[in-house]
Amino acid sequence: MAPKPLDYENINENVKKVQYAVRGELYLRASELQKEGKKIIFTNVGNPQALGQKPLTFPRQVIALCQAPFLMEDPNVDLLFPADAIARARHYIAMTSGGLGAYSDSRGLPGIRKEVAEFIERRDGYPSDPELIFLTDGASKGVMQILNTVICNENDGILVPVPQYPLYSATISLCGGSLVPYYLEESANWGLDIGQLRQSVWEARHKGLTVKAMVIINPGNPTGQCLSEANIKEILEFCYIENLALLADEVYQQNIYQDERPFISAKKMLMSMGLPFSKEVQLVSYHTVSKGYWGECGQRGGYFEMTNISPKTVEEIYKVASISLSPNVPGQIFLGLMMNPPKPIDISYAQFVSESKAILESLRRRAQIMTDGFNSCRNVVCNFTEGAMYSFPQLKLPPKAIAAAKEAGKAPDVFYCLKLLEATGISTVPGSGFGQKAGDFHLRTTILPPEEEMPEIMASFKKFNDEFMQKYEGYSWSRM
Amino acid sequence: MAPKPLDYENINENVKKVQYAVRGELYLRASELQKEGKKIIFTNVGNPQALGQKPLTFPRQVIALCQAPFLMEDPNVDLLFPADAIARARHYIAMTSGGLGAYSDSRGLPGIRKEVAEFIERRDGYPSDPELIFLTDGASKGVMQILNTVICNENDGILVPVPQYPLYSATISLCGGSLVPYYLEESANWGLDIGQLRQSVWEARHKGLTVKAMVIINPGNPTGQCLSEANIKEILEFCYIENLALLADEVYQQNIYQDERPFISAKKMLMSMGLPFSKEVQLVSYHTVSKGYWGECGQRGGYFEMTNISPKTVEEIYKVASISLSPNVPGQIFLGLMMNPPKPIDISYAQFVSESKAILESLRRRAQIMTDGFNSCRNVVCNFTEGAMYSFPQLKLPPKAIAAAKEAGKAPDVFYCLKLLEATGISTVPGSGFGQKAGDFHLRTTILPPEEEMPEIMASFKKFNDEFMQKYEGYSWSRM
Repeated sequence: MAPKPLDYENINENVKKVQYAVRGELYLRASELQKEGKKIIFTNVGNPQALGQKPLTFPRQVIALCQAPFLMEDPNVDLLFPADAIARARHYIAMTSGGLGAYSDSRGLPGIRKEVAEFIERRDGYPSDPELIFLTDGASKGVMQILNTVICNENDGILVPVPQYPLYSATISLCGGSLVPYYLEESANWGLDIGQLRQSVWEARHKGLTVKAMVIINPGNPTGQCLSEANIKEILEFCYIENLALLADEVYQQNIYQDERPFISAKKMLMSMGLPFSKEVQLVSYHTVSKGYWGECGQRGGYFEMTNISPKTVEEIYKVASISLSPNVPGQIFLGLMMNPPKPIDISYAQFVSESKAILESLRRRAQIMTDGFNSCRNVVCNFTEGAMYSFPQLKLPPKAIAAAKEAGKAPDVFYCLKLLEATGISTVPGSGFGQKAGDFHLRTTILPPEEEMPEIMASFKKFNDEFMQKYEGYSWSRM
Repeated sequence: MAPKPLDYENINENVKKVQYAVRGELYLRASELQKEGKKIIFTNVGNPQALGQKPLTFPRQVIALCQAPFLMEDPNVDLLFPADAIARARHYIAMTSGGLGAYSDSRGLPGIRKEVAEFIERRDGYPSDPELIFLTDGASKGVMQILNTVICNENDGILVPVPQYPLYSATISLCGGSLVPYYLEESANWGLDIGQLRQSVWEARHKGLTVKAMVIINPGNPTGQCLSEANIKEILEFCYIENLALLADEVYQQNIYQDERPFISAKKMLMSMGLPFSKEVQLVSYHTVSKGYWGECGQRGGYFEMTNISPKTVEEIYKVASISLSPNVPGQIFLGLMMNPPKPIDISYAQFVSESKAILESLRRRAQIMTDGFNSCRNVVCNFTEGAMYSFPQLKLPPKAIAAAKEAGKAPDVFYCLKLLEATGISTVPGSGFGQKAGDFHLRTTILPPEEEMPEIMASFKKFNDEFMQKYEGYSWSRM
């Protein structure tokens, strides 16, 4: 019988080519083990509230009122909600035409796009135009939309850092384009070397690709580094010279755990560089409510801001956004709240600040505990997590471990991570899911487990790792 | 200077090809007029709450508590929320791992997928497997995902009814496939004729296309017809014989305004047909919280159920869903509530039923008022809206109106709808946005304006229409 239209043989090859390790083999095995009753520590995805992070109170009060505006007519509402949450709920309801149950404009509610623009202006000190800001169901959706606009066919190349967050490789596959890797330098704390970048572009062009865009992730995922001012400037100059659009994934801009390199947006740097750069380099910048000290992943709120993109292209992007009608409206309101948090004059200000600070300070401590923990392990070296939510230690796997992995039909880092999962319940993502230099092996873990559980988790990791390394080093090591 | 990567000349041709009239020229002009202070009646999109439909109270109470679970610890919670809403909020919170701020599994929360399966089993009397149900940010996203899986290249054809909801034509363009139209018969109340379908497939194959899937919209959008049992059966037999996957858009299944043809799902019919059909025909069925008497468009909740799709393909669809991590969790909970509404034993049952009935009965009356209104107009004929949310009257435009449109550089129905908008503020979508037979002209309007405003709107429409028709009929008509 002939294969049917939705049989595997018949479906879109680009779909089949997609690889997405964050929810790949390790995650599936972890889910199975969980069903069997094993306690799993899901550190495979940056999902803070799944690991116990409490949501900020004020935004949740506001959204509850927006969802049930009839509560505001109840004489008892003041018993459960502070006055500023009520006022803010009225502010957002007034921006909608019909409340949270009505589709908004496909670019998002104009009032919230204005709040985003005002946030960007305060952050960068340069103007921002709400007409060039589109709200999305999380940043990933915006990345997918822009890549689908840029990529015409398999000859179109997109520069992506390696290691990278696999959203990029997966979406490039899905859109039928070509990923052009540029390697981050682990020994230079995952720094970006412009010489290396130039070489990648040259090689890609030599293969017949048209390199159209470059992705940066700042702070880095999975690598956790923060780009310096000088580095961002070099990148923008490079994009100008090479005629590349820059996609700046800045979703971790609140997650900074050192003071030497504060977050600087690509937009700010671009504007500060003046002509011709500020008018010529095409830039799309991303942000989200899923990260930072908000961690509202499940709400799916995000935006992208377009700079130096022609109105005709903006119209095309709007048209395509219209097909799925509207990003979810509650997620838009979370974004509005993130852009425009309580002010010192507000009743809820003190609580909001104390909750946010506590989360951010704890993340900073956890980044340190984790880096130190990994660096205390046999054959493991790990750069400090300067920002974002991940630790990306290198595993120096002994030849015998590599041989054992080969025998088991697994990539060496997958083999290690599976053993780690079975032994400890810690669910990580193998470095091969992000890309790494040939012969190097890593894993990615989030820094999100609750702080009080961290010492135990790291001890359990160390015990597993050191035994694993010892086992596979065997005699050959002891003779060295 | 060379064009830049995101300049119009350089972007993806499939993006440029997309047409999406529901938010096209008419909508943009309406938005402009609104900014200028004109009162606009937005009937271009099925967005009930934007036109004043009140959301159902119980689901909004539950979601407010899910968003702010700390309220449930407050001794005063009973003053604002009924006990069954509190119990239900606890039920859904327990299904998440970390509340609404945590990503769910990329297919949606297992507990809610189970509630969907139970709903389908109750509705159809046949088993449903939660593992084959994926939750989505509204039904459109699911349609896009499946079409992107089916379509490999421009030789792949998808049968789409004409007139159709432009989600289908737009997504097929975006995925680089080919739309194969099959015309619905307006004179037979927009019935689907299998002979016509066979002819469409034959013609498409003659052109070298591989016809892979067929879309049905039941109840119809924009045409408002309900498919009969016999018709659905014929369609499924046809899909079996022609090796087509069937995509059944059943988002209006609650919106039925006559008693002769109650809604019957394609899944139920397929199962009732027995072997070989029930095991062979590949079917994907869609539903949403945006329509029915819920109308929760802005929440973006929906699902698709796959029948007879191989596990390997289901895995691929899961993998691609994983790239954007998780549908929004509040939307998933709305879907759970829709699948599992209050029961007679619940405190909120009476209010829930009375609210739902009032909405549905008013929609039924509005469908009648609108059809009658259109049929009282000069040169307008309109089938009764048996289901869904739209009226799709035919406009018999005089040759002089067609000539005037040509002179203005507009399609005749666009010309008419723009004039209607300027004169009355009624924002509709021209029939050409949905497809129509050459030489036929229509417009689509929703039946959603508030019932009390309906007589005035229809009077304003009639006044405009009759004057328009009279003007362009001129002497030639009076001489006939």
